[in-house]
Amino acid sequence: MPQYTAPLKDTHFVLHDWLKLSEHYQTLGLEDFDQELVNEILNQGAKFAEEVIAPLNREGDEQGCTLADGIVTTPEGFAAAYNEYIANGWNAMLGSADYEGQDLPHTIAVPVQEMLSSANLSWRLTSILTESAVLAVTKHASDELKNTYLAKLISGEWTGTMCLTEPQAGTDLSLLATKAEPCDDGSFSITGGKIFISAGDQDWTNNIVHLVLARLPDAPSGVKGISLFLVPKFLPNTDGSPGQANTLSVGSIEKKMGLKGSPTCVMNFDDAKGFLVGAPHTGLACMFTMMNDARFQVGLQGLAVGEASYQGSLAYAIDRLQSRAPQGVQQPDKKADGIIHQPDVRRMLLTQKALVEGCRALSLLYAQQMDIEKFTSDANHKAKANNIIAFLTPIAKGFMTEMATELANLGIQVYGGHGFIREWGMEQLVRDARITQLYEGTNGIQALDLISRKLARDKGTMLEDTHALFASKVAEIKDLQAKTQAEALLQEWLSTAEQLKTLNAIDLAAAATDFMHYSAYCLLGVIWLSMADTAKGSDNESIKTGKANTCDFYMKRLLPRKESFKTNLFNGSEDLMAVSVEEFNYQ
Amino acid sequence: MPQYTAPLKDTHFVLHDWLKLSEHYQTLGLEDFDQELVNEILNQGAKFAEEVIAPLNREGDEQGCTLADGIVTTPEGFAAAYNEYIANGWNAMLGSADYEGQDLPHTIAVPVQEMLSSANLSWRLTSILTESAVLAVTKHASDELKNTYLAKLISGEWTGTMCLTEPQAGTDLSLLATKAEPCDDGSFSITGGKIFISAGDQDWTNNIVHLVLARLPDAPSGVKGISLFLVPKFLPNTDGSPGQANTLSVGSIEKKMGLKGSPTCVMNFDDAKGFLVGAPHTGLACMFTMMNDARFQVGLQGLAVGEASYQGSLAYAIDRLQSRAPQGVQQPDKKADGIIHQPDVRRMLLTQKALVEGCRALSLLYAQQMDIEKFTSDANHKAKANNIIAFLTPIAKGFMTEMATELANLGIQVYGGHGFIREWGMEQLVRDARITQLYEGTNGIQALDLISRKLARDKGTMLEDTHALFASKVAEIKDLQAKTQAEALLQEWLSTAEQLKTLNAIDLAAAATDFMHYSAYCLLGVIWLSMADTAKGSDNESIKTGKANTCDFYMKRLLPRKESFKTNLFNGSEDLMAVSVEEFNYQ
Repeated sequence: MPQYTAPLKDTHFVLHDWLKLSEHYQTLGLEDFDQELVNEILNQGAKFAEEVIAPLNREGDEQGCTLADGIVTTPEGFAAAYNEYIANGWNAMLGSADYEGQDLPHTIAVPVQEMLSSANLSWRLTSILTESAVLAVTKHASDELKNTYLAKLISGEWTGTMCLTEPQAGTDLSLLATKAEPCDDGSFSITGGKIFISAGDQDWTNNIVHLVLARLPDAPSGVKGISLFLVPKFLPNTDGSPGQANTLSVGSIEKKMGLKGSPTCVMNFDDAKGFLVGAPHTGLACMFTMMNDARFQVGLQGLAVGEASYQGSLAYAIDRLQSRAPQGVQQPDKKADGIIHQPDVRRMLLTQKALVEGCRALSLLYAQQMDIEKFTSDANHKAKANNIIAFLTPIAKGFMTEMATELANLGIQVYGGHGFIREWGMEQLVRDARITQLYEGTNGIQALDLISRKLARDKGTMLEDTHALFASKVAEIKDLQAKTQAEALLQEWLSTAEQLKTLNAIDLAAAATDFMHYSAYCLLGVIWLSMADTAKGSDNESIKTGKANTCDFYMKRLLPRKESFKTNLFNGSEDLMAVSVEEFNYQ
Repeated sequence: MPQYTAPLKDTHFVLHDWLKLSEHYQTLGLEDFDQELVNEILNQGAKFAEEVIAPLNREGDEQGCTLADGIVTTPEGFAAAYNEYIANGWNAMLGSADYEGQDLPHTIAVPVQEMLSSANLSWRLTSILTESAVLAVTKHASDELKNTYLAKLISGEWTGTMCLTEPQAGTDLSLLATKAEPCDDGSFSITGGKIFISAGDQDWTNNIVHLVLARLPDAPSGVKGISLFLVPKFLPNTDGSPGQANTLSVGSIEKKMGLKGSPTCVMNFDDAKGFLVGAPHTGLACMFTMMNDARFQVGLQGLAVGEASYQGSLAYAIDRLQSRAPQGVQQPDKKADGIIHQPDVRRMLLTQKALVEGCRALSLLYAQQMDIEKFTSDANHKAKANNIIAFLTPIAKGFMTEMATELANLGIQVYGGHGFIREWGMEQLVRDARITQLYEGTNGIQALDLISRKLARDKGTMLEDTHALFASKVAEIKDLQAKTQAEALLQEWLSTAEQLKTLNAIDLAAAATDFMHYSAYCLLGVIWLSMADTAKGSDNESIKTGKANTCDFYMKRLLPRKESFKTNLFNGSEDLMAVSVEEFNYQ
């Protein structure tokens, strides 16, 4: 496994130089978080990710998880690392101070979260779900539930899960069949089977808090009849300690392509005691509180795998000596030159670098909006930040995870045949990354969310506010040529998006995935021009020239990809719908 | 695992309607192979692939191969299936009749080979290597070696391997260190270690014939000092039966991402007895005899995985009911519609279909040229066929395997979360396909071979002859609009290729991968326009309209991909070479 090193220099550049974090914190009344403190937290996070979590990754994949006598065992070392994680307060970074959280800005938490996912995607997943559960409970649960569960979820003493999917109900939650019967004591009796439950059980904590979608007896059919329930593995005693076991169990754990260190459970709820979260029949809204956060985190996982793969391929490309470079001998003291001197290898490395750094900037720009949403006292700013987050979530989730698979595959390719061998760790990144395109809504669903809910069916403010954010970054560009280029690109994207709004539902669905990619390549183009401009003022020489060169590569070799996506946007849907089943398989 | 069904209808269409096999055979004096006989052989091949090989695929992946006490064990059923395969003469399809082969045309063998790889990539790999060994021995070995080994390799009684790679010498064979010392009896003593040796040992046959690259004592350094040796596992007795064990052994077998049913061995040769194949120091040329054949077969593996994945996703898209289609309720008797009615799912299915069918046509067009090369008595025809094969080999290997990974990943995506679960078999296709981009020369090497050896450094006849072949297909197009479109596309490709010839070595290397993709998309465009035109005359209604609709999809949604590749062709290499190591990792 390549050694993981947290990308602190790039992260510092994006936070302090590009996003001007100090100014940002001052505007939000968060003056305590100066550059020194931010960097200190990131350094500690980096140390934890590099030294504690990353070393467990390769062996965790080999060991996987097991289920015996109803009990899940995770790979060796995972539980101890988790205990260190919660003991050091990492789980509580974002939780409310009212429940012993640290209320940190997202711009501090997100870089740490990226590092954790780079170091070990399987290990990190459990705490992502806990963070999502914290959000749902914080926003929707009664004070009684909050008082019992929230501090424990925030500290990480207990973990959380999201129990949504059933065998017949994945993308389509209207088909959900799990039942919730009211009991005399105000609780509910939950019965049904759920699949794909990440960390549905684990050997890390003495309790687990399941957030379960189910139907009340009088519920309307479809998604409007779904409610959210909190169902603990052990019912808490009055002193808060885990008491009687609830009637729920792990049916099996899945054998998967990757993410093997994370137990993916089939969960059976058998008259299990649960508590309603939010109003009856509002489960879908409550779920989206969790889901949107989880979607961004999954996008961040994509970025994280891209970074890990880039580090692995860069190290190998420097070390591996094969053939002489076409531009002439580079390492005359060696029998061959490092493959990093080969143009085609550089094409792969720079594709990784340009997409990873572009996506990191996107993820931190998104984190900045989450800060505003969380801390601003200005309702207008808050609403705009909300709109931007809503619009960018499917792009962050969809694009950054598509990118992860592309980049992790490039990582294998740089290694040649060795990339296919498990011990190098590069193929694990491909297998682990693959789930990110699927869970928390497949990328097809992200694309439909973007083009229909966020673009066509919105009154236009989400697009407008997102455009305004990027326009503000363009306005800051000092180099006139870069500014003109960025303006033109952003304008092209805006007018293309506006044109799309007039399409009918079928043509929109046909254009969805292409629009997601098209948007990402355009917006990353703007980000790159803006970052390269900022980097001119950096006192780190390698940042200054490195950002300029990587921007050049992006604009020349990656941005042109947008054209074929754009072409497809206006191709309608007739060609897609014309093909009959007989034509699909030539019966 | 999705049930595999050989794509006979499409194959028949391509062979008989599009390539006019009867006329082709008549021209080559192969009148015996009429349509009925061809289809009968394909039917038998399909039956074998579907009923014997495919059922072993999923379990073979779970079991993998083991090495204990120096002995390799392959998954249950693999050896028995192989014995049935050779007993029924399948291994001998292409071998020379002089050594008990069947001398079948490639246009018959290639569809069967595709089926075998679709059914079980791991199982098929061993016989690919034997076929390559047959070629090398047939073309380069002495009569004595031929008389001892060739009939056994052709029948498959013994299998063959290619022992090229060493830890320090992969892409760069000039670094090869294995030694060959001449012995008094005219044989050689081979010493050295080889890695990545597919089927370096197996439990299928009582002998194995290794073809090993090594250096003679007086050898010049670099690739001009490499010779090829035949090194049997057991030295044959005078009656041809396996005798004394040679001094070679399996050091270990690799733990891999996929292809787990195929043992990938570290081989140690310890003063092993070997026999020179071809003249001293001509090992590279002898190796390329094997390698070029293997490269096409690896491309075919890519096509094969694409087909298997397409079949899996099509079946699931029909069965899986989730949500209602945006164009209105499609299955009112069900609670939801099949996801095949979703435009975005159709986009994925049609991407698979259009690329698989396009690549199948390309592979059979290539097979037709192999027929000409093998059977024609016209030296000019033979030379042209040779040129076309040389030019198309890196495209077939490189593009069809890149496509395999894209399509197999789409296959997972159609399944949503279920695609990540092992039992469905879709993720295995991704893992198995991944090796095809790496072995027999990474796709970066294919791309360099294409743009430098086959395009820039050739005197121009390879490009010319390949263009002429495609031009002849364009000339046959009856529909005037399609013909004009195909002519323009082919002309664009030709003039772009000719422009590239003037680039310097660094810029060529920088453009290599983009040129491979660009060429493939252009040539597949020509193939699709030509196939759709041919299909108008088909008496199978689903072929007639299905080919037209799929062509429409290809031209609208996939051909535009060529543009970004084309843009990159003329971007030079400065942006790639400008980035310093410090800029790569911001030290």
